[in-house]
Amino acid sequence: MANSKFEYVRNFEQPDSLMPNTWIVVRIDGRGFTNFYSRMCAKYEFEKPNDKRALDLMNAAAKAVVTDLPQIAISYGVSDEYSFVFHKTCNLFERRASKLVSTVVSTFTANYVYLWSTYFTDTPLSFPLPTFDGRAVCYPTVQNLRDYMSWRQADCHINNLYNTAFWKLIQLGGLDNKEAEKTLAGTLAADKNEILFSRFKINYNNEPEMFKKGSIIFRDYELVEPGSHNEAAAADALAEPAVQSKSQAEKDKKRRAKAKVVVEHLDIIRDEFWDKRPWILSGKPGRPANPSKEIQT
Amino acid sequence: MANSKFEYVRNFEQPDSLMPNTWIVVRIDGRGFTNFYSRMCAKYEFEKPNDKRALDLMNAAAKAVVTDLPQIAISYGVSDEYSFVFHKTCNLFERRASKLVSTVVSTFTANYVYLWSTYFTDTPLSFPLPTFDGRAVCYPTVQNLRDYMSWRQADCHINNLYNTAFWKLIQLGGLDNKEAEKTLAGTLAADKNEILFSRFKINYNNEPEMFKKGSIIFRDYELVEPGSHNEAAAADALAEPAVQSKSQAEKDKKRRAKAKVVVEHLDIIRDEFWDKRPWILSGKPGRPANPSKEIQT
Amino acid sequence: MANSKFEYVRNFEQPDSLMPNTWIVVRIDGRGFTNFYSRMCAKYEFEKPNDKRALDLMNAAAKAVVTDLPQIAISYGVSDEYSFVFHKTCNLFERRASKLVSTVVSTFTANYVYLWSTYFTDTPLSFPLPTFDGRAVCYPTVQNLRDYMSWRQADCHINNLYNTAFWKLIQLGGLDNKEAEKTLAGTLAADKNEILFSRFKINYNNEPEMFKKGSIIFRDYELVEPGSHNEAAAADALAEPAVQSKSQAEKDKKRRAKAKVVVEHLDIIRDEFWDKRPWILSGKPGRPANPSKEIQT
Amino acid sequence: MANSKFEYVRNFEQPDSLMPNTWIVVRIDGRGFTNFYSRMCAKYEFEKPNDKRALDLMNAAAKAVVTDLPQIAISYGVSDEYSFVFHKTCNLFERRASKLVSTVVSTFTANYVYLWSTYFTDTPLSFPLPTFDGRAVCYPTVQNLRDYMSWRQADCHINNLYNTAFWKLIQLGGLDNKEAEKTLAGTLAADKNEILFSRFKINYNNEPEMFKKGSIIFRDYELVEPGSHNEAAAADALAEPAVQSKSQAEKDKKRRAKAKVVVEHLDIIRDEFWDKRPWILSGKPGRPANPSKEIQT
Repeated sequence: MANSKFEYVRNFEQPDSLMPNTWIVVRIDGRGFTNFYSRMCAKYEFEKPNDKRALDLMNAAAKAVVTDLPQIAISYGVSDEYSFVFHKTCNLFERRASKLVSTVVSTFTANYVYLWSTYFTDTPLSFPLPTFDGRAVCYPTVQNLRDYMSWRQADCHINNLYNTAFWKLIQLGGLDNKEAEKTLAGTLAADKNEILFSRFKINYNNEPEMFKKGSIIFRDYELVEPGSHNEAAAADALAEPAVQSKSQAEKDKKRRAKAKVVVEHLDIIRDEFWDKRPWILSGKPGRPANPSKEIQT
Repeated sequence: MANSKFEYVRNFEQPDSLMPNTWIVVRIDGRGFTNFYSRMCAKYEFEKPNDKRALDLMNAAAKAVVTDLPQIAISYGVSDEYSFVFHKTCNLFERRASKLVSTVVSTFTANYVYLWSTYFTDTPLSFPLPTFDGRAVCYPTVQNLRDYMSWRQADCHINNLYNTAFWKLIQLGGLDNKEAEKTLAGTLAADKNEILFSRFKINYNNEPEMFKKGSIIFRDYELVEPGSHNEAAAADALAEPAVQSKSQAEKDKKRRAKAKVVVEHLDIIRDEFWDKRPWILSGKPGRPANPSKEIQT
Repeated sequence: MANSKFEYVRNFEQPDSLMPNTWIVVRIDGRGFTNFYSRMCAKYEFEKPNDKRALDLMNAAAKAVVTDLPQIAISYGVSDEYSFVFHKTCNLFERRASKLVSTVVSTFTANYVYLWSTYFTDTPLSFPLPTFDGRAVCYPTVQNLRDYMSWRQADCHINNLYNTAFWKLIQLGGLDNKEAEKTLAGTLAADKNEILFSRFKINYNNEPEMFKKGSIIFRDYELVEPGSHNEAAAADALAEPAVQSKSQAEKDKKRRAKAKVVVEHLDIIRDEFWDKRPWILSGKPGRPANPSKEIQT
Repeated sequence: MANSKFEYVRNFEQPDSLMPNTWIVVRIDGRGFTNFYSRMCAKYEFEKPNDKRALDLMNAAAKAVVTDLPQIAISYGVSDEYSFVFHKTCNLFERRASKLVSTVVSTFTANYVYLWSTYFTDTPLSFPLPTFDGRAVCYPTVQNLRDYMSWRQADCHINNLYNTAFWKLIQLGGLDNKEAEKTLAGTLAADKNEILFSRFKINYNNEPEMFKKGSIIFRDYELVEPGSHNEAAAADALAEPAVQSKSQAEKDKKRRAKAKVVVEHLDIIRDEFWDKRPWILSGKPGRPANPSKEIQT
């Protein structure tokens, strides 16, 4: 049975390599999440608006992805979504979009399902199983990339403030969905803070950082005291791949593999986070973090 | 915290809709399979060259995908790969490649991990978990699609015959890898059949159909007695979307949802399979299969 | 001066090959035509709504493109646009979109500018010169391709009927633009025919075929008496590339090069045009047209 | 004749917008140039290796393109090729690749054909007419863009030195093609310089700048005395689009339209060219060049 007469079908595969020297963001989302989250809430009794177990599970699955793929520079998660940033110099799978997206999605899903029982000890998974879809987007400059990250974190803040107020009005205030919606219609951030405080004595600032800021995953090294404000342009220069010897690249790879992958809940909109951790944008591993020293922002 | 100044980053998303009116094949593969399979063999004691439990697990995960996504017309699996064919009229996710690929990969992975313990009762999964990558390819005609399917099944046959002979030479013949390789170098199919029969009294034709033909998954209806040879052109006509009333489309959807999803091991290179099951290419559900009647090829 | 350190920039080129086995349509349009045509009218005194010299020049430039590129199966032009159809088996420039589009646009433009003085004998071209832009679209089936062609010809009819009525109301009826627009608002085709006939004794049917149907360019052979209605599916079968010997392909190429390229103004929406000229969709050259015999529809 | 049933064919058009915030290079080439140039040489008696009239015509056509499209930041030409660089902030045609490429190619071709008789006063054009094809490539950083430009200019130098030596060996040295090829095989730049000087008393440095460096086209303003070495990173910052008022954008546009478009033959590999002309990368128009002052490098 000669196979050769069928092989021409391979010519229909279209190349999908992403532009070199750009930051690749692979973002995954809980599939059909609006329904999914409602379903998850109903089915597995997720707490509203934030279920700590559900977020911890998301973070654990994402940490497995980052650990598995050292080409990931940083990762940011909120609610049922996670963004994985591949460094602009990354050449994994020759930057083929479908390979990158499907590998991230598959690794995330495998760990999410496998680790479920660790976080939901008495609520077993059942069909249909939770799944995630994904897509890849490229950003040419550090400024564009940071604006993407800021966009997600600003979104997290806006949604969480709204959802916190909304659910407190229902859970503590006794309103129904419609009444809560109406109460919040047209309110600004300050108004929502005020509602939370005056009605329920809740200071939004004291809400858990994970809920307010989302989760950031990265390889950790010793923090750097930045001499000056770290402008995007300088970061671009930093991020420009210097010509590197093979042995240096090999050393870097080993240091990266040894680095501790951490999950934090920090402000990534302001410069400070990036200035203190230049290795994230430069791709050059830093000095091992002093294990006896506390992590500081 | 105004989010609007960051939102421009959405403009970097590139559309990736696949060409309308073409067959979409999403193929997934065990990630880094060459190593993966060896690793799986070593780690989980897969049998060589075919581990029935491993194939049954692949089939169960694929069946879950087909059941979950009724837009899939047919699916074919062999070894650690599976191809899912979306009908040319399918408009799921507006035919966006990344959504289609990631959803298939995620659903497959979730079920693979979840169902693992059903098939490997005393070999628990461990890190790093098995994962899959995927890609989408479009085929404009039924002939191209069937040639794709034939290519995969011919590949299955060629590899399985080789692997069966190779491992019998080692397992029963006492050869080492190099000797087995040398013995088979340059042999034709007939030679391999002869080696199996004369040395080990193994008639390759009696090997399990699943190993020789791979696995085909589809919705089952009453078989049709084809009046004549079903040419690709006629099939293209059949596959051409007729203008359909909304209510008819709704009825079809319900009938499709009720249809039994089956896993078979049949010849899909010859016309017979397709002629008897016109619903696969036409997308029009057939008559419910008589449950008391045996499935016949 | 070593060039090698810069050569990496070639890696930024993205492949843009179009899907194999699909019909490629390259459509070109007069750049910024709405303004352009008004400008052309003002600058070169084009007649409204149709300037025969301008259309003849378009046709001459398009004929040069078809003659130059024998992989073009058929071409259709109306107003300032032209569509060139490459046969689904065409492998010119490895089907790279940018090469196909730019070559068609450049050849068309070169001939348009070069031949200008032949058609506009006493109106020399001046800056800025007329230019054209283009794009490529693929169609997987003959039905899709014919629907594309029908779409353009139906558009031609609709626009020409409107424009004829509009300009007669102005030129013969003494109305101004606004009044003519208002007169035609909401009218159907029959109404416009009636306006032309009752007010100006113009029978639209007697208008020149080139204005009503646009222009079709193809290689001409002896017409075929179709035995039966030629369905799209059969045409797809016809269009399916049979395995062909090299020498046969070579012969076909020569016959195609010898064939006369003609410009006609026929109905391409109905089957008749295609049924009588099976070579257009099959790609197989027909028998040389009898030069003493009149071309018939 | 309802057009609506055909309109679905528009859905087959695939979007092809290029990534935002990247430099777009549209490069055009004489179609089938290797043959083309030989043909041009034979047909129109182009001088070898450089025909001043042919290059002047290329430059005139390119200048018309740059003048017509103010979004072009700079353009570089050598032999039968020309590269047009659209600024990273350019949003012309919503950055659609086919529109950008076809518009550049069409404008270039129209001017090349139209202006032919100005440069080849006694050699009229004849069929088939000279044509050009094109493609678009994106570069995310100023460094990548400058490396692209350097690549083309380094190529110009390498080819011109070789071709100059090659043709002098034939034209003055009496060698045939094969002998000239053999003489130059394996020689370095210094060897070729030496051959030219010792055999023909030709100092390559005295060859015309247009032949040695190619042609650069840009809008000219008053040169800037750069304070320091202008690093790529700083240029990236410079090139980053600042938020600009509408009225400022309008003013810039007018200043750009008024600026003189010049054709120069300068070194664009070293920093000096770019440092003195920051407006090319920044996109911000400079101060009008003093007309009484000589242009200096």
